[in-house]
Amino acid sequence: MNYKSLGIIITSVITSGICFAQTSPTAVVEDFKISETTQQGKQYPQVNSEGRVRVQLAAPEALKVQLDIGAVKYDLIKDAKGVWTGESAPQDEGFHYYQLNIDGAAVPDPGSMYYYGASRWGSGIEVPAKDEEFYALKNVQHGDVREHIYFSKTNNAMRRCFIYTPPGYNKDTKRYPVLYLQHGGGENETGWSSQGHANLILDNLIAEGKANPFIIVMDNGTWTPPTQSAPVSAADRAKGNWPPKGWADGFSKTLLDDIIPLIDANYRTIANQSNRAMAGLSMGGMQTRVITLANPSMFSQVGMFSGGSISLDDLKDSVSFKEKNKLLFVSYGSRELENRKEGLGGDPKVNTENLKKAGFNTHFYVSPQTAHEWQSWRRSLHEFAQLVFKN
Amino acid sequence: MNYKSLGIIITSVITSGICFAQTSPTAVVEDFKISETTQQGKQYPQVNSEGRVRVQLAAPEALKVQLDIGAVKYDLIKDAKGVWTGESAPQDEGFHYYQLNIDGAAVPDPGSMYYYGASRWGSGIEVPAKDEEFYALKNVQHGDVREHIYFSKTNNAMRRCFIYTPPGYNKDTKRYPVLYLQHGGGENETGWSSQGHANLILDNLIAEGKANPFIIVMDNGTWTPPTQSAPVSAADRAKGNWPPKGWADGFSKTLLDDIIPLIDANYRTIANQSNRAMAGLSMGGMQTRVITLANPSMFSQVGMFSGGSISLDDLKDSVSFKEKNKLLFVSYGSRELENRKEGLGGDPKVNTENLKKAGFNTHFYVSPQTAHEWQSWRRSLHEFAQLVFKN
Repeated sequence: MNYKSLGIIITSVITSGICFAQTSPTAVVEDFKISETTQQGKQYPQVNSEGRVRVQLAAPEALKVQLDIGAVKYDLIKDAKGVWTGESAPQDEGFHYYQLNIDGAAVPDPGSMYYYGASRWGSGIEVPAKDEEFYALKNVQHGDVREHIYFSKTNNAMRRCFIYTPPGYNKDTKRYPVLYLQHGGGENETGWSSQGHANLILDNLIAEGKANPFIIVMDNGTWTPPTQSAPVSAADRAKGNWPPKGWADGFSKTLLDDIIPLIDANYRTIANQSNRAMAGLSMGGMQTRVITLANPSMFSQVGMFSGGSISLDDLKDSVSFKEKNKLLFVSYGSRELENRKEGLGGDPKVNTENLKKAGFNTHFYVSPQTAHEWQSWRRSLHEFAQLVFKN
Repeated sequence: MNYKSLGIIITSVITSGICFAQTSPTAVVEDFKISETTQQGKQYPQVNSEGRVRVQLAAPEALKVQLDIGAVKYDLIKDAKGVWTGESAPQDEGFHYYQLNIDGAAVPDPGSMYYYGASRWGSGIEVPAKDEEFYALKNVQHGDVREHIYFSKTNNAMRRCFIYTPPGYNKDTKRYPVLYLQHGGGENETGWSSQGHANLILDNLIAEGKANPFIIVMDNGTWTPPTQSAPVSAADRAKGNWPPKGWADGFSKTLLDDIIPLIDANYRTIANQSNRAMAGLSMGGMQTRVITLANPSMFSQVGMFSGGSISLDDLKDSVSFKEKNKLLFVSYGSRELENRKEGLGGDPKVNTENLKKAGFNTHFYVSPQTAHEWQSWRRSLHEFAQLVFKN
């Protein structure tokens, strides 16, 4: 999870589930099914209708095997053949990183597919959601996701980004608006089109006529926080003392000097402010906030998913932002709001309402029953994509 | 490795190395470096100048941890802190699948990147090669690799392929020849652009002016062998009794009825026989052999990498093949030829020479000091790409 690298403390939403799992094992509903993130041909991991994750591993000589998910470790039970099985408490709908622990070794589950997050390639699991249709793989027209390798002068290094071009792009000669869409801390440029399903979300919305087609650029905005002698306090965060001033300058320069010119030169973009948006999740939302506030002539439409908000105070240093901004979208998972009262530039709902009163086109969205996790961000993109490039 | 699913027995080339490792541990050269396939931020796996792979894992309560590579398991040694370390015998240059074994559990190494092969997503390791420059990531113009999702009528299912478009494709309006390039058994559509580096091989060749730019289409040709009551004998294979007749019909139909029309409709291809090639490795080479022999009016240029060859006898049923074929490329790793005398339609070198005498444009290539493994296939593509679409 990306909050670790940002020094934000979020009370685990799983805590209440632990006691339940340990005191009432008989309550487990036996309708487990192979997950869509289980490797083809493997029988585990599985998920049941409660959202419990069940794993199984042959480890005949192991002394202890655990499932480590949602910051909780669940003991597995060994059968006579040396096969270990066990399940977690119910997890939120959507996608979660996890791992196994075998006699003290933290390793990926050999049954799962692998994803980049929590600062490592490792296991991920999909818990079916009631609204999963919006990111399901369907027989509609699909856009391409392209891996594009380039040299960055700013970084003096080879880099890559992923670029979604909408259905039709390969055949027509039209030009399209562009959304620059950023991942969170501990994640990378693969996240949005892998566990995020950004391409499927857009394909489905475009097929239903609910979104105007646009290009999405997903690059790597990784920022390594400076080493702290002590944890960052809530008071420091509320005062805006964290992250440190200038923290987003590195990626901002790469984006403005390398990535945007590269995309405008190589893809059929409408290369102007009206048709350029930036959005991101968590750290990527915070980068979006800093970069779009500082560059109102570059971006007209802004999305921050679990990544703070913009207050009237923030606009003191960016007088042209109001005049040039066409869309400001702020979202959170409902459990995030329950568990956190300050930080990230103040109450996001109040901030967003104040900006609406001041004449901004703002939208505040809350993802039901989700925390600082991918289901919140998939839903946020789904909402944002229906608003962006329509004004 | 894909030979398993094809029932071909190849004597392990690693065998001689085991004794060396176990009897002379002091001979290990201590110049290990982090591999390019090690996850960013991780310290292991590492590889030394001999090609030994060293892994390290914290597993304080484990009783036994092993490195499993090249069909050999190497015991690791535990230090006072519960950290296990150990290395393999020297491996061939290039890419290898591997895994760890912790108290009887076969799991991916949490330090490595993950690849699809040996019928699972799991660990892979890159052993630096003397000729690695040809597939290195360099500051040259790069093509895109696109993930393309489509509906297949033949399979009545959603499928995906990866498509390499050469540098320049995004900006120019030219049309390009197409190579359909297939993976081996137990692998999938991700192999050639991931561990195979097909895109980098082409980018580098095009930058040097050694290959004409072309599109590469990489789809999933997985064939599941029917269950055998007994292992397939060498005699059966020599007689052409394995794989069973019709084994490639499924993928052939998908390729001809779905994939080729899809590509010609959506990409700027030169949609004719002269500008259409097919190649593949191992099972993919065998599919190439069967499909191009049966469809000489579709493909003019053919590459089989460790996947058999074509004899004069094979042409009895394909009279127009000679008249229509412009290039026939056959390759093997040198260790494969040392270890196998028959099978796959006879001696590939003799077959290929006989066809040259009969007037074909044939090429026979042997990859030095490699076996049935990716380094043979990277080199084969590097050779093939310099010959194809030049006649």
